[in-house]
Amino acid sequence: MIARRPAVSALVFDVFGTVVDWRGSIIREGRRLGRERDLRVDWAAFADAWRAGYRPAMARVRSGELPWTTIDALHRMILDDLLRQFGIQRLSEADKDHLNRAWHRLRPWPDARRGLTRLKRAFTLATLSNGNVALLVDMARHARLPWDCVLSAELFGHYKPDREAYLGAARLLGLAPRQVMLVAAHKDDLYAAKACGLRTAFVRRPLEYGPKVRADLKPERAFDCNADDFLDLASQLLPRKK
Amino acid sequence: MIARRPAVSALVFDVFGTVVDWRGSIIREGRRLGRERDLRVDWAAFADAWRAGYRPAMARVRSGELPWTTIDALHRMILDDLLRQFGIQRLSEADKDHLNRAWHRLRPWPDARRGLTRLKRAFTLATLSNGNVALLVDMARHARLPWDCVLSAELFGHYKPDREAYLGAARLLGLAPRQVMLVAAHKDDLYAAKACGLRTAFVRRPLEYGPKVRADLKPERAFDCNADDFLDLASQLLPRKK
Repeated sequence: MIARRPAVSALVFDVFGTVVDWRGSIIREGRRLGRERDLRVDWAAFADAWRAGYRPAMARVRSGELPWTTIDALHRMILDDLLRQFGIQRLSEADKDHLNRAWHRLRPWPDARRGLTRLKRAFTLATLSNGNVALLVDMARHARLPWDCVLSAELFGHYKPDREAYLGAARLLGLAPRQVMLVAAHKDDLYAAKACGLRTAFVRRPLEYGPKVRADLKPERAFDCNADDFLDLASQLLPRKK
Repeated sequence: MIARRPAVSALVFDVFGTVVDWRGSIIREGRRLGRERDLRVDWAAFADAWRAGYRPAMARVRSGELPWTTIDALHRMILDDLLRQFGIQRLSEADKDHLNRAWHRLRPWPDARRGLTRLKRAFTLATLSNGNVALLVDMARHARLPWDCVLSAELFGHYKPDREAYLGAARLLGLAPRQVMLVAAHKDDLYAAKACGLRTAFVRRPLEYGPKVRADLKPERAFDCNADDFLDLASQLLPRKK
């Protein structure tokens, strides 16, 4: 028997937008809360504003303006601002905490679980997310995502696209960067990983920002794979059955 | 419906000896290698000597004599000494690397996988091992251990029983120490966890050191649970079906 040693041993996944549909999930949770608490809010605008606060908040950590702060805490800082902006006043502390933890309950894209299950046969699967460990663990339990390992920017004290996150993931997995492939729906994440020597797989998520926003879905020759979803990625990476 | 909120949210597991049978596994791997390479070695003595080198090696890291060194690297340092002591000379570098990675392929105790699967319904399950992340991830894939999260001393730069390991695990899981229970077959590990505020479950593993060594299996009132194996632990921790 000749052992087949694939060049890539582990796939590491961006999570928000790549594995899970943050926008649809936050809108759904917001609407449910709105019905229960009799709130009139444009939850799509709320979801978009929440997500829009995410990069600037991380930038404050990356620049050193803030000490290390988890995504849970950053989400809550943004949320408290948004509740004021959207004039939402009648939420208890328990309501706010529950809403903030909606990010722990994001739902996977329809192909995600099945695609991951197929990919897991041949590759070690890990998250490589800016989400904190507790958030990612809760999400995996809720969404039944079959990770072999939960890796997070939190473990390295550096948010992506800092190099420490990509190189740290390879180091913890005991692999050289070229044995690790980042799977992501965001080109800036992939280019940063590529600059660290990782392989790259771009997955198109046309609905990440909603039906009205046209995302950049163009395949790039710079990436090792360009895939329509995780099932397509599995078809490209796994050997065909004879 | 009244939500049942158990006081304990996550179980973290010592691994070597508690989840997997390191001694039986190393003996089996050694015997196979011995047949293939025509070596005459007392593999039970070899396994015991390898394991006996483990604590002193970690102690050199804990004291600061050595910088942070993974268990893979410590195992290899001990292995190189043992190969000389046991007069084993005809192994290639690939053979030595394969033998060192036997620790990535340790087999679970017979009740482990089934017990974990039952416990996973109610609790977040994580490792809390001195083994490095890559070792634990490989082991979980080989042995199909259903961890929600792989936590390792490597993430904290501190080997158990340093406090940083226990407190770091609770922090990454987003929990207070009292919401986390350490499951272990070793009383020193459990007492160290208890001193940090974690709950404790002692699981008897009478064969960890082989049939000739009598382990300390006495239940202790200091621990929150004393169990015969993971199935017994599940029976004690999970609500009975009505």
